[in-house]
Amino acid sequence: VLETVVDEMGVHERRFTLDVGQETVPGLLWTPSTLTDDPRPLVLLGHGGTRHKRYGYILQMARRLVRHLGFAAAAIDAPGHGERHDPARPPGTVDLPAAQVVAEWKATTDFVQGQPGIASGQIGYWGLSMGCSLGVPFVAAEPRVGAAVIGLSGRYEGVRSAARDITCPVLFLCQWDDELVPRDDVLALFDAVGSTDKQLHANPGRHQDVPGREFDAAEVFFRDHLAAAPA
Amino acid sequence: VLETVVDEMGVHERRFTLDVGQETVPGLLWTPSTLTDDPRPLVLLGHGGTRHKRYGYILQMARRLVRHLGFAAAAIDAPGHGERHDPARPPGTVDLPAAQVVAEWKATTDFVQGQPGIASGQIGYWGLSMGCSLGVPFVAAEPRVGAAVIGLSGRYEGVRSAARDITCPVLFLCQWDDELVPRDDVLALFDAVGSTDKQLHANPGRHQDVPGREFDAAEVFFRDHLAAAPA
Repeated sequence: VLETVVDEMGVHERRFTLDVGQETVPGLLWTPSTLTDDPRPLVLLGHGGTRHKRYGYILQMARRLVRHLGFAAAAIDAPGHGERHDPARPPGTVDLPAAQVVAEWKATTDFVQGQPGIASGQIGYWGLSMGCSLGVPFVAAEPRVGAAVIGLSGRYEGVRSAARDITCPVLFLCQWDDELVPRDDVLALFDAVGSTDKQLHANPGRHQDVPGREFDAAEVFFRDHLAAAPA
Repeated sequence: VLETVVDEMGVHERRFTLDVGQETVPGLLWTPSTLTDDPRPLVLLGHGGTRHKRYGYILQMARRLVRHLGFAAAAIDAPGHGERHDPARPPGTVDLPAAQVVAEWKATTDFVQGQPGIASGQIGYWGLSMGCSLGVPFVAAEPRVGAAVIGLSGRYEGVRSAARDITCPVLFLCQWDDELVPRDDVLALFDAVGSTDKQLHANPGRHQDVPGREFDAAEVFFRDHLAAAPA
């Protein structure tokens, strides 16, 4: 099911829902308003704890990928977040098994790549903090992920363990004065990432203070790694 | 004294010598072959231990700054290095006081900015490893330095102490598997840099394996911080 929500400034935004296991997963798909014959590479956007699929930086990242690169972008609410709010699962805590979250992103990829104008090749994943913790098992398990921007995470041994299986190029972010995730844990997660092509960008500031240049860097990173990907 | 050494591919390379204290300091100046009315921002390039003012990556960095940005670049031999080879001062060890090296870079800046076509405003400094250790006191002391790319250093308390006085924007590089400088020492030097606008780029690999993208990043960094500097 795809329904138009917004079409502005050249960005077409549509809503979809997917049934994955026992869960109903609502998502958003952003594409250029004008379809061309060139299929668009897809970037998945994983929001942080207590946020949702249309939170400010998610919408901003989606729109710049569409406007600047002509890419498609998609986001879903994480378990317990956004439309999946559940008093039994407070936002910021995700106790579902990683397998469920991996299945949700896989179903999202399958669905979006089945839409007209979306390239069937390599995709990108962007997710920081909880979006990194939940995204790492997917990035590690899904061979279609050809580039990932992750970071601001590192407290969980399970995530560190899964990170060793990542092989795609990775841009990893660290907030040097992170008050939520100890710096050494973040650096240890970067260290664990299995990819030979990985890079760390660290900036002063607290957990939420990721500077604008890292959104620029993510855009360039996806452009360089996905733009020439086979359709 | 300025004498032409090489003029190729649009880059004019001239040699100069300066008397600084008891030392004679040989240097190279790279500028676009074609002079225009627009004064060129200057970037100083500090080579690493056992290297010299025309070592491969120095020449490469100088030429790309000239060709891609239309900037000027200059390098000098560090004490005991290149033409300043001295059996009493083996390359890689620099026992001259920081004050002498600061004076050499200051004299270089004064001289080059006195040449036709060189902007008198803010300059850049690029130096890794020994080029960072020797450059930090200069970057900290010289208000004309408006942007610095440093890193791969951190073993010396004196350098760490001087770094606290740096205030200009800094791009700091770390080789994650550095076999010469312990990673924690490199990160501690980044931590010490006093600038509010600083960023760390870390890449896998050994001390000498700085990837090409960090030369790209340095170019963009100097372009963004110096291109609009007043002449």
